[in-house]
Amino acid sequence: MAKLQANPYTLTSTHDTLTPLRIARSAVSGTDAEEAAFTRWFDAQRSRFAMAVRRIELDALVGWSTVPGTGDIRHDSGKFFRIEGLEVHFPNRPVKSWQQPIINQPEVGILGLLVKEIGGVLHCLVQVKGEPGNHRGLQLCPTVQATRSNYTKVHGGASVPYLEYFRDITRHRVLADVRQSEQGAWFRQKRNRNMVIEVDGDVEVLDGFRWMTLGLIHRLLRREDLVNMDFRTVLSCLPFAGPDLGAVLPAGEDHLRAALTASCDERSGSLHAMSDILSWITEVRTRTEVSTREVPLGGLPEWHRSPEKISHRSGLFFDVIGVDVRSGGREVDAWTQPMIAPVGTGLVAFLVTRLLGVLHVLVHVRAEPGYLDVVELAPTVQCTPDNYTILPPAARPPFVDEVLGAAPEQVRFETLLSEEGGRFYHALNRYLIVEVSPGAGFEHPDFRWLTLHQLADLLRHSHYVNVQARSLVACLHSLCAGRPR
Amino acid sequence: MAKLQANPYTLTSTHDTLTPLRIARSAVSGTDAEEAAFTRWFDAQRSRFAMAVRRIELDALVGWSTVPGTGDIRHDSGKFFRIEGLEVHFPNRPVKSWQQPIINQPEVGILGLLVKEIGGVLHCLVQVKGEPGNHRGLQLCPTVQATRSNYTKVHGGASVPYLEYFRDITRHRVLADVRQSEQGAWFRQKRNRNMVIEVDGDVEVLDGFRWMTLGLIHRLLRREDLVNMDFRTVLSCLPFAGPDLGAVLPAGEDHLRAALTASCDERSGSLHAMSDILSWITEVRTRTEVSTREVPLGGLPEWHRSPEKISHRSGLFFDVIGVDVRSGGREVDAWTQPMIAPVGTGLVAFLVTRLLGVLHVLVHVRAEPGYLDVVELAPTVQCTPDNYTILPPAARPPFVDEVLGAAPEQVRFETLLSEEGGRFYHALNRYLIVEVSPGAGFEHPDFRWLTLHQLADLLRHSHYVNVQARSLVACLHSLCAGRPR
Repeated sequence: MAKLQANPYTLTSTHDTLTPLRIARSAVSGTDAEEAAFTRWFDAQRSRFAMAVRRIELDALVGWSTVPGTGDIRHDSGKFFRIEGLEVHFPNRPVKSWQQPIINQPEVGILGLLVKEIGGVLHCLVQVKGEPGNHRGLQLCPTVQATRSNYTKVHGGASVPYLEYFRDITRHRVLADVRQSEQGAWFRQKRNRNMVIEVDGDVEVLDGFRWMTLGLIHRLLRREDLVNMDFRTVLSCLPFAGPDLGAVLPAGEDHLRAALTASCDERSGSLHAMSDILSWITEVRTRTEVSTREVPLGGLPEWHRSPEKISHRSGLFFDVIGVDVRSGGREVDAWTQPMIAPVGTGLVAFLVTRLLGVLHVLVHVRAEPGYLDVVELAPTVQCTPDNYTILPPAARPPFVDEVLGAAPEQVRFETLLSEEGGRFYHALNRYLIVEVSPGAGFEHPDFRWLTLHQLADLLRHSHYVNVQARSLVACLHSLCAGRPR
Repeated sequence: MAKLQANPYTLTSTHDTLTPLRIARSAVSGTDAEEAAFTRWFDAQRSRFAMAVRRIELDALVGWSTVPGTGDIRHDSGKFFRIEGLEVHFPNRPVKSWQQPIINQPEVGILGLLVKEIGGVLHCLVQVKGEPGNHRGLQLCPTVQATRSNYTKVHGGASVPYLEYFRDITRHRVLADVRQSEQGAWFRQKRNRNMVIEVDGDVEVLDGFRWMTLGLIHRLLRREDLVNMDFRTVLSCLPFAGPDLGAVLPAGEDHLRAALTASCDERSGSLHAMSDILSWITEVRTRTEVSTREVPLGGLPEWHRSPEKISHRSGLFFDVIGVDVRSGGREVDAWTQPMIAPVGTGLVAFLVTRLLGVLHVLVHVRAEPGYLDVVELAPTVQCTPDNYTILPPAARPPFVDEVLGAAPEQVRFETLLSEEGGRFYHALNRYLIVEVSPGAGFEHPDFRWLTLHQLADLLRHSHYVNVQARSLVACLHSLCAGRPR
């Protein structure tokens, strides 16, 4: 072999332990004054980004057609998304098969958060934006949320601000970059690329954007329906786990906070070794029999199309509706689109417990028809309680009573948050974190207690943690440093 | 909240650092005497497991039919696998689209290795087995290789020995348990569950099975066409990475071996941080445009069906053939089946280099039509050189010349190994590990230098490392302790 040349390479740490500390420092940085300043700014934005949304008949959608023969609803460009029918078989479940409408949106969009050190503290560039499905208008969003149709300009609108930072990442530091699934009950194999990119240089702050510390964002996460789903999922992908976070995060007098900090450090150990968790997921993926196939939306026996909506004969689950949107602050000024409008308010909760001083989260390995790889880790409870009135009692999910019957002092986080307002109309879920005493009663083959550092490890990869659980992970992070409840 | 009960839980280390040391100890345990004893035993097996394989016409297959209309080939039970047509579109590649036959086998089988400490050293329960596609008859296989049809007894044969250890793992230690893809050029979304299970108690050793150390297996991996593909992929999933392996593995006078040991330890660092590797994979998965759709096998314009085979008009790539099998040591005694018979011998190679004393492997992020998630990490070179005679020059893969033109002293591993003989007929690849000097010339957007501990980290998850690269990872492990070449 030829003699080795002078080696121009340098090696780096394979795992970055500095970034988690910087993230923790940002998380302890929010103040009452900053929150008050935010509120004034946010209120001032409302007038600039007005959006009028009106429900319209499905046949009144412009640029969208019902395909003859199948009844599927599609955009005339063939882009954006389609609403189709799906037949689902779960041969080993109480409800063995059903048919339902589902959104088919094969494109992978970008949910991007730009971060930057300002005064030695990481700040996030946050955007104020309205979506047609929002219950209360404006929400806090990540820097960029763009479908592929969006950034390749299928709709002919304005370009997406700051997108260039996420299209060419070679010049920036990547803190997170992973494709994650979205609602597997409503989307067929939808994924978005969740990115957190750190920049050094000057960044122009456009109207409707603002730099905020994680501490401030964590405070705002407790406000009802303010931080949108896209932002929550990106936040959950931040590497908020590592050694020595305790040096930054105040323990305070709250045992929960110390247990959270310990839970972010793999040196604290965990109830289950990671190899056992991965084996459990493999096992459930192998034993869960699920099959799906496309069927015509117009031929679903339990679903009825009226001029206003496609709905289940029970009136439960969700409707497919049409909306007309007029907007001042979007890429285009007016459009119509179909949406999914869930019936009822959902319940999304983690049970958490302290095991030998380390917080553990009870995760559920859950199959949804739209998942690419059978199952993902989900909240302890994720359901719309009303739906179970017509389903067999065996279908009622475990641990609902532990959540609904929790004493006030057990409830460590609770707020109403909504799912993505670009596709879902008034899709509200009550998100809760409920602390329970360790003990018997939580043994179940489809549930395991995981630490936060184990969840952080899984969140670096696709197909492991579902979107509702990711929202709750962001909420858990907010308890690491935020004001105690 | 109710007062905490006495806590009955104990926490464990999230990441097991003892198992890699035990694996390394097993890897240094092979002796010349053990190898000689193996050879005598193996030769004695030949007479017991005779298998006669004869090529037959496709219409002579028994229990298999050509579906009228489509020309697809399927088993009359609807189980096992089907051979269908696939149309593939890669709009941004030199070859933008093609049609080909492909095996559709949606079931997830088990490739299981039973391990046990004997005299303080981990031993693997290895099986001798013939498959109809084998070039030379018997091979060394993992303890269990069972398709789901196999272990649910669709073919009505004998039960699979030792399967019970892999069906109920709660009483055993799990060293590896992950679903991994197989050949994405020949299989549509095929995956097998790769499992390594450690048992404590007595295990009866049946005829054709034998306990062997990893050291002995690593020696045998250098023999031509002996260790089968299923065994190689399971071996690659062993957690052969951790700190302090240098205390067990002899450094010797070979710089390569010390660099391999350092490469197994994440404290050695790496050229790229793991977050950058994951971001690179996400980026390529997002930018690679690939779409596939099922088409009738009988309607592929470039493929011709004769009585003996379905072949490409060029005579290249592969044929679909039929075989008649008579066996003494299989679940059933005689059967016929279709197989894929590749044309020519493939080339599968890793370029490796020492960067500051740490071995790095040049991996290629590769798209194949059968992958579930667009791309996987592949060997530096994976191709059948003959096929490129009819393709545009731009389609010729990078780094082929570095492999084919390597000086003898650069070649650290070389042997002829075959792909799975249950589906592929005489599918031989030349597997090589070639050491190169670090330097320029290896910069390419689809290639990165990774350490072994980074590969081990990715191998705990599905969809990252393809089956050819997994074979080479097993070959690399064999260099950690085996006799120097």
